[in-house]
Amino acid sequence: MVTHMKWWGWGKESVSFSPSDKPDLAPFIRTHIGLDITRLPAQPPAFADLTIADPVLPEPLRAALVDAAGAEHVTTDAQARVVHAYGKSLRDLVRVRNHDLGRLPDVVVYPGDEEAVRAVLAAALAADAVVIPFGGGTNISGSLEAPRTETRPVISVDLGRLDRVLEIDADARLARVQAGALGPGLEEQLAAQGWTLGHFPDSFAHSTLGGWIATRSSGMQSDKYGDIAEITRAVRVVTPAGVLVTRPVPSQSTGPSVREMILGSEGRLGIITEATVQVHRVPEQRVILGYFFPTWDAALLAMREIAASEAAPTVTRVSDANETRFSFATRKRGSLASSLVSAGMKQYLRRVRRYDLDQMCLSFIGFEGSPAHVKAQRKLVGAIVARRGGICVGTGPGQLYDQKKFDTPYIRDFLLGQGAMADVSETSTSWSQLGPLYRGVVARANKAFAEIGVTGWIMCHLSHSYHSGACLYFTFAYASPVTLEAIDGYDTVKSAIQQGFIEHAGTLSHHHAVGVEHARWLADDISPAGVRLLTALFDGIDPGRNLNPGKIVPGVDVAPGLADSAGPDSAGPDSVSPAGSDPR
Amino acid sequence: MVTHMKWWGWGKESVSFSPSDKPDLAPFIRTHIGLDITRLPAQPPAFADLTIADPVLPEPLRAALVDAAGAEHVTTDAQARVVHAYGKSLRDLVRVRNHDLGRLPDVVVYPGDEEAVRAVLAAALAADAVVIPFGGGTNISGSLEAPRTETRPVISVDLGRLDRVLEIDADARLARVQAGALGPGLEEQLAAQGWTLGHFPDSFAHSTLGGWIATRSSGMQSDKYGDIAEITRAVRVVTPAGVLVTRPVPSQSTGPSVREMILGSEGRLGIITEATVQVHRVPEQRVILGYFFPTWDAALLAMREIAASEAAPTVTRVSDANETRFSFATRKRGSLASSLVSAGMKQYLRRVRRYDLDQMCLSFIGFEGSPAHVKAQRKLVGAIVARRGGICVGTGPGQLYDQKKFDTPYIRDFLLGQGAMADVSETSTSWSQLGPLYRGVVARANKAFAEIGVTGWIMCHLSHSYHSGACLYFTFAYASPVTLEAIDGYDTVKSAIQQGFIEHAGTLSHHHAVGVEHARWLADDISPAGVRLLTALFDGIDPGRNLNPGKIVPGVDVAPGLADSAGPDSAGPDSVSPAGSDPR
Repeated sequence: MVTHMKWWGWGKESVSFSPSDKPDLAPFIRTHIGLDITRLPAQPPAFADLTIADPVLPEPLRAALVDAAGAEHVTTDAQARVVHAYGKSLRDLVRVRNHDLGRLPDVVVYPGDEEAVRAVLAAALAADAVVIPFGGGTNISGSLEAPRTETRPVISVDLGRLDRVLEIDADARLARVQAGALGPGLEEQLAAQGWTLGHFPDSFAHSTLGGWIATRSSGMQSDKYGDIAEITRAVRVVTPAGVLVTRPVPSQSTGPSVREMILGSEGRLGIITEATVQVHRVPEQRVILGYFFPTWDAALLAMREIAASEAAPTVTRVSDANETRFSFATRKRGSLASSLVSAGMKQYLRRVRRYDLDQMCLSFIGFEGSPAHVKAQRKLVGAIVARRGGICVGTGPGQLYDQKKFDTPYIRDFLLGQGAMADVSETSTSWSQLGPLYRGVVARANKAFAEIGVTGWIMCHLSHSYHSGACLYFTFAYASPVTLEAIDGYDTVKSAIQQGFIEHAGTLSHHHAVGVEHARWLADDISPAGVRLLTALFDGIDPGRNLNPGKIVPGVDVAPGLADSAGPDSAGPDSVSPAGSDPR
Repeated sequence: MVTHMKWWGWGKESVSFSPSDKPDLAPFIRTHIGLDITRLPAQPPAFADLTIADPVLPEPLRAALVDAAGAEHVTTDAQARVVHAYGKSLRDLVRVRNHDLGRLPDVVVYPGDEEAVRAVLAAALAADAVVIPFGGGTNISGSLEAPRTETRPVISVDLGRLDRVLEIDADARLARVQAGALGPGLEEQLAAQGWTLGHFPDSFAHSTLGGWIATRSSGMQSDKYGDIAEITRAVRVVTPAGVLVTRPVPSQSTGPSVREMILGSEGRLGIITEATVQVHRVPEQRVILGYFFPTWDAALLAMREIAASEAAPTVTRVSDANETRFSFATRKRGSLASSLVSAGMKQYLRRVRRYDLDQMCLSFIGFEGSPAHVKAQRKLVGAIVARRGGICVGTGPGQLYDQKKFDTPYIRDFLLGQGAMADVSETSTSWSQLGPLYRGVVARANKAFAEIGVTGWIMCHLSHSYHSGACLYFTFAYASPVTLEAIDGYDTVKSAIQQGFIEHAGTLSHHHAVGVEHARWLADDISPAGVRLLTALFDGIDPGRNLNPGKIVPGVDVAPGLADSAGPDSAGPDSVSPAGSDPR
């Protein structure tokens, strides 16, 4: 039995965000975005109020799907169709609250093995239907939705039944895992044998291995374990050209890497059924330490120096001053975090350390391994932090962060209920561009808030460090009616932030994929020739555009607000300069 | 002025391999392959004896190339055409000694900047000519040669004038470097500012950054610095679809990585003009230690344990018993290495450590960084080595290895002069498959030696370690006439080894690229669907197959001995299953 998140929001039915035990939050939000969150929230939408279009499913296709996956695994049930219609972007959440469901899939299929996936794809291609693979449904880039104008039957292929760890090779530290395995189930199966994958995206509780691969996901401990692109050593993918099977070799020079072509492919090349992934022994010791830095600039400098040092921490995370203040505002009564900002601590920071508390930045740095290793790494990091005026505040806040890290997405639904739009946008750039990008994006966001006439809030943290740069993760919010019309304002802000990334040498997304949400910046990011490489690949493998059409390379209207800016139609093979034309 | 290697062999005119100061080598070779290397060698071929076909170069194309690159940078000189006709594979060396030059390029162009490269490609496409990029010419997979049956004009584009480090971003630890920079010049320019790239393939002295990227190269210190795929953070490539420009961001989720599509593309997508690469501060300390292990199995186990430990050495290398004995046989009179195997040492190993000296394996492990870091890493590695019965023999042999590491390719020319074929083949596989693959390949090679009626020699070393596996690098030799007919025998042996890789979960090449030499195993390695992905990409971007045709995906007869086994013709876009067909 495959379970899903709330059809209208994030996570489990039984879980929601509550401000009641966080006394500082309501005043904080009132001050910064002028919203009173103590009112009774708007109710989530009622399923009975939705208008569900009848499915378009020709009988021969239905029969073929039943043949492929079994009758009990093929459904046209209305709620199943709605659950599979979109992901959990802010745009999705606003639309569903306004009963705008877009182009629902006509049928949901749950294949039980690779052969069934193959048969489903064959049936789909034979019927000229559209196929959209579905993992956990957490995507926030519009990767799961059918084009609004799609007239062919749309099949959502839910991989949820493919949820097993098939084999662990202890010598090679590799595990063969089915693509539909959800984070917790996957870690549980590995932990039973003393292993971990070490991949913990914010969406961990509800996202799948196949989804991580299809979107080039990163996790909170990727500094140590690597992004999913590095963790994934081999893939099995059902494509129109047959089942792609790569070998789990550690490195190879077999032309352009086909494994890499699957990473980030968002279903446009086929359906991922299995991957061979690197696994690690559960570490002996695991510590996340909290640090304070006097300023954001000092903190960024320290992170850069840590990346260039012989220390190799598991987690490097630092919040800007705004996010630090927000963190304090969400502390619970009597929690460890509250002691952090006790009067005594504040006095020490102000008087002895000469901190301006409004500029102070909270950081978490994680360490894993043997006690000797952890000790040595802590010492290296501690020296760098101290040189930049930072201080260690112990394991308390880190433990709290660690326990609560997967709860953040629930806040968006809470705020929507209260009448506020809140969303995220992340990028990566080189260490030298990090400061200018940060300032440029904040300035652009504030200008956009003014443009749409709201009091907006933007905050940021550095979430991953690499040799040459880092990921910056922005969160923004403002009070707004939660209507379809209000999406225009959201687009103004979100676009300003994305444009800031592009202007300051950043990428359109560090780990949330392109989907349709970010497609309009693709040519700016990887250059028009880069888009041509992608188009050549997609159109060569899927000339009928049956596989999740319109994603990555834009060209089809999927969701309101994206139509005008979706850029040129994806180029077919004949638009690549033929022999004889000028290469510019 | 761009200089080149010997037109008929490896390296500088003034350098060659000599056995005269290595007293044990001649007896060793006599014993193991029955060859007397004390005879006067055959002379290398004389250029005057070659028959050079006239170039096919329509005047409008010549004029356009002159416009693009300048008259003094466009040549149809016979020796320039021969130098650019092939790489330095054993097949190439045997053929040139027999005056078989294949399909020479008609013209060699040396563009001086990216705009000139763009103009050259435009002229070539306008004239329906073939374009083959040329870096240092060290390729051993046939990647540089035009198809023998090519009737269109063939242009070799030598990137040698694009040899500068353009910019170093010290904060981001990134350097912008032109693609034609040779290893030594590149390291010199970086060292002048205190930096290193840390990429040292065997070919280092004569190969270029662009060549490394086009073939997914690895270097001797890649355990620390990463393979070129990791080092290369951004590329600029002149393609038929325009100039591809990617951003030097540390990680991104912009769909399938176009940067990765260029890595290993062997000129099939365009001409690489520039890359942004990770650079590192020259380490404070650098040590390569020698170790002995009692057996190959014990050594492999130790390497696996080191990879799984908290140690992160720069180099992990271990020779099997055969290669260890060969190393001893090449020691110089009175050298450090000779003291290693002094009578006293032998006695100690035999009597105290109970080594069977015929099974003993020599290993080098490198460490870099601060003295404290090096000390800690040595200690971790030392404990693992000791647990597997190994002993440390100090820095002497490592220093010698370090000094001599780039000289190995000269031996092939020496042996050809003496009447022996010697070549290499490398793969990678998971730690659990390493032992079976090694035994399988050695058995297959020995069977092949018997089949062609020679006394052959095969030896191996592990050259790179990763999380989940390692690279095994095989070298083989046997006495043979150096004739075109004798290439059949060589093919039998080389194919047996490659087939052994494929049978035992290895890849067709870890870092020597596909070219035409390995193309027949591509579908076995990445599956037929993987080949379809590559074909879709190549044919979509280069529908006229003007860009280095026949490489990676086979289909064109390039060199003798490959014609029969070259596999199916590369599939055009129309052979990808259209909508409606069965996906198998």
